[in-house]
Amino acid sequence: MSSYHPRIAVVGSGAIGCYYGGKLAASGHDVHFLMRSDLDAVRRQGLTLRSTGLPDVLLPKVQAYASTAEIGPVDLVLIAVKTTANAALDALIPPLLHPGTALVTLQNGLGNEDYLAQRFGAERVMGALCFICLNRIAPGVIQHFGAGTISVGEYRGAPQPRTIALTDALIQAGIEAVTVESLITERWRKEVWNVPFNGLSIAAGELTTDRILASPPLEKLVRGLMQEIVAIAAARGHEIPADYIDFQIERTRPMGAYHPSSLLDYQAGLPVEVESIWGEPLREARKAGVVAGRLEALYSLLAHFTV
Amino acid sequence: MSSYHPRIAVVGSGAIGCYYGGKLAASGHDVHFLMRSDLDAVRRQGLTLRSTGLPDVLLPKVQAYASTAEIGPVDLVLIAVKTTANAALDALIPPLLHPGTALVTLQNGLGNEDYLAQRFGAERVMGALCFICLNRIAPGVIQHFGAGTISVGEYRGAPQPRTIALTDALIQAGIEAVTVESLITERWRKEVWNVPFNGLSIAAGELTTDRILASPPLEKLVRGLMQEIVAIAAARGHEIPADYIDFQIERTRPMGAYHPSSLLDYQAGLPVEVESIWGEPLREARKAGVVAGRLEALYSLLAHFTV
Repeated sequence: MSSYHPRIAVVGSGAIGCYYGGKLAASGHDVHFLMRSDLDAVRRQGLTLRSTGLPDVLLPKVQAYASTAEIGPVDLVLIAVKTTANAALDALIPPLLHPGTALVTLQNGLGNEDYLAQRFGAERVMGALCFICLNRIAPGVIQHFGAGTISVGEYRGAPQPRTIALTDALIQAGIEAVTVESLITERWRKEVWNVPFNGLSIAAGELTTDRILASPPLEKLVRGLMQEIVAIAAARGHEIPADYIDFQIERTRPMGAYHPSSLLDYQAGLPVEVESIWGEPLREARKAGVVAGRLEALYSLLAHFTV
Repeated sequence: MSSYHPRIAVVGSGAIGCYYGGKLAASGHDVHFLMRSDLDAVRRQGLTLRSTGLPDVLLPKVQAYASTAEIGPVDLVLIAVKTTANAALDALIPPLLHPGTALVTLQNGLGNEDYLAQRFGAERVMGALCFICLNRIAPGVIQHFGAGTISVGEYRGAPQPRTIALTDALIQAGIEAVTVESLITERWRKEVWNVPFNGLSIAAGELTTDRILASPPLEKLVRGLMQEIVAIAAARGHEIPADYIDFQIERTRPMGAYHPSSLLDYQAGLPVEVESIWGEPLREARKAGVVAGRLEALYSLLAHFTV
């Protein structure tokens, strides 16, 4: 797909935005980064992507800006702000739009596509699930620890040419990327893991996943929370097979002392994405008339702990 | 009721057993205490009951024993062991029994009357709810901080002459005592408070009641847990009026930085009565087919925290 040369903006240049945007830039794409705190450092020294077992990728000259007005209209916006800052998108996105601009949310949890669709039109909205472990270790320096698969899809309906073009561009940039038939169903599947493990990693006393599963009452609660998510998803039209719960539990056991991303945020004093990970499925449960008391209790505790 | 002179045993001579047993002994009743760690101290120095604003009650000579076999058959057994030690009752109670012996559980939560009834016969079983704040501050020395009302009732059916006789004996011993028509309904009413406040005082990060109610998500969870208890109680035949939830919330606000008893136990490294306070209502919910997800989540977290 060498004919695919979109003008790209990255909004939210934390670890996720810098990594995927940086990889696309390194493979020759025209990428423009909105930056805040790292702007001066990146203008001086560029971006560095470090991956375990691979040579560093250094981008000495990066197109970095302090406002989206300076970037102007683009074909593709990669959105990677924390979901706790979604309200800022209302002002950040409009300067980037032309009639065909696509908005791709790389954010966590549920409801981000809805948010963008309500404000900027559903036809613009795409999304991607990022299965990756990243850390911003210094201004403009991103450490990549593992994985990196990204699942690209449309907010509404089946993949389009633009969906496949973006997936291919990511693959050519050295990223393991796939196109998914139903993005929102994939988001619900990710919630099956995120809701219990990210949630209990904070609410059960700062525990890694191995310690959650080493506790019989907590493993039971993990399963109960997963059952609630599966039930809510089903009521909202997203079928998840019954054996998916066992699969998720068993794939987590060998992960060892894994720190879920919300635990890392919590321990670093950063905002935890309570609304997109736990608040949204709870609101979906209410819309669907599904009782989800475990989720509600966990949401309340997390809302309290992360004030 | 000066003709009421039962031979009384106190099994579980912690703060509750020593206080109520000690008050009965001080008013002339024939009370025999089963003691463990405090036995030598109490044989040497007796029992001291200290109440704020009142002179100390000193019982220099206390009938204290190392085994219930030494006590032998009695008319009334006051049971005040921690519910976490209920299994020990299987061996402790039989030496105290004659055909008419009544067993009165002063313990917390649900299921203690059932436990005694299954093993020793329902007709023996009585119970009492203790609304009191006590602390054992040294061997044989009990500090009484406040309240002290005790509600006496039968496990099965309406009050009997023995119920009223015990209530009167307690009143004559200087204790505010009442006879209740339906003991188990009263236990469910107490659960409406205990489940959320004792539970969240541990699970939400060692909080006093004022800090629980100062957190909007936690107050919401308190109400949700209370609604579940009211629903389970109703399904088990115990009607609690709808406005009872508001009443319990509002009476808790002026209590200030109150430490629920389970929080005191937890912070002191003592066993927390997880099964009788949270496990029993959850099992009752399952029997009744009532969904109680918030209670289940809280129970799992507490079972984890108090291992």
